[in-house]
Amino acid sequence: MQLGRHISGQFNAELESIRTNVLTMGGLVEQQLSFAMQALHKQDIELARQVIRDDHKVNAMEVSIDESCTRIIAKRQPAAKDLRLVIAIIKTITDLERIGDVAAKMAYVAIETPDLKDRKFHVSLEPLCRQAIAMLHQVLDAFARMDIEAAAEVHKLDDRLDSEYEAVIRQLMTYMMEDTKNIPHILQVMWSARAIERVGDRCQNICEYIIYFVKGKDVRHLDDQSIEEVLRKE
Amino acid sequence: MQLGRHISGQFNAELESIRTNVLTMGGLVEQQLSFAMQALHKQDIELARQVIRDDHKVNAMEVSIDESCTRIIAKRQPAAKDLRLVIAIIKTITDLERIGDVAAKMAYVAIETPDLKDRKFHVSLEPLCRQAIAMLHQVLDAFARMDIEAAAEVHKLDDRLDSEYEAVIRQLMTYMMEDTKNIPHILQVMWSARAIERVGDRCQNICEYIIYFVKGKDVRHLDDQSIEEVLRKE
Repeated sequence: MQLGRHISGQFNAELESIRTNVLTMGGLVEQQLSFAMQALHKQDIELARQVIRDDHKVNAMEVSIDESCTRIIAKRQPAAKDLRLVIAIIKTITDLERIGDVAAKMAYVAIETPDLKDRKFHVSLEPLCRQAIAMLHQVLDAFARMDIEAAAEVHKLDDRLDSEYEAVIRQLMTYMMEDTKNIPHILQVMWSARAIERVGDRCQNICEYIIYFVKGKDVRHLDDQSIEEVLRKE
Repeated sequence: MQLGRHISGQFNAELESIRTNVLTMGGLVEQQLSFAMQALHKQDIELARQVIRDDHKVNAMEVSIDESCTRIIAKRQPAAKDLRLVIAIIKTITDLERIGDVAAKMAYVAIETPDLKDRKFHVSLEPLCRQAIAMLHQVLDAFARMDIEAAAEVHKLDDRLDSEYEAVIRQLMTYMMEDTKNIPHILQVMWSARAIERVGDRCQNICEYIIYFVKGKDVRHLDDQSIEEVLRKE
């Protein structure tokens, strides 16, 4: 009995440590996005280089957390909710790693913009990126507390990010039409905009994993209203 | 002893059935991509609608295989190689589902191109898409046989897809510059090209999961040469 409690205590400590690592990874990814946005906005090449250098840290964290998850499944044979937590974590870190890639891509665009006058095309990315960072911040917060109500709220925010993205693309298109020699560089900025818009989709994925963990129900491919219904069910 | 063999026989049958489902899902995704390409090429709206309708089948297969994987972990508590297989499958189906999304996106572009003369912009997508489909076909084949040599070969093919993609984008850019009123539609075609290029990255991911399963080594974030070295090690 005592031994059982001891083992289960160790198990909980291990699970808790993995969760903490996910949040650390999430914090790093959030910082990477924020630095990439600043690098683009202020044309800060040194900061852009740092973002690219640090991308391997995000990758290494993904690999290491993945290993911890596989180890805990093999060693502790978790069932039910514990197992769902491990599966939710394995999926969450994949999305976090891809968000890290977005930051690195944005940093490359900053480096590949030698002409200062081209910075005007980057201006429209800032509010878009701010929204994406806010969404990431909120979903990490929901993850820390495993709060399904908060997760469902973040899930809904993606529509706003999509509208903002559409507006950015329309604006960039008019720049393209005004002067066709800007097309190659504006395309780079558009790729960044699209990558940022995808950050919202990845945050939605993480919301879905939180709900999967807490409610034991897979809500991927459901709309916001159907997700609300799942949440209301006991 | 007999009972043990019986249970292990059942377990193997369950694992085998999940693997078969992954291959069925892969086959469906390959077909979706192929139909989407034809729909774009021949401006076949009916076929495009079918691709969009069938996307939910791909999604449902992902959810169902995911459930089988969680169930087998909880019930059978697989260790070592068996566990790696289940983890590899959980990750593989995420990538397959996203490739399915690419097919649906291409189908939408076909539907949103009412003007027959715009079809000329779609022509350049065909060889790109053919390459991506071939890569998917080969990686599914490597998955079926869990053949790491074949996986490493497919992994290398992505460079060729990237070069083809760059060529397509350059060509589409010249169309944009020739007549700026084509910009909005050409952008749609460019998004498709980019999505197809990402199919290659997702096939590379699946190659990495195959190597992870067989060799027990996580080769994500390694270049092709380092992967070769992992393969040579016993």
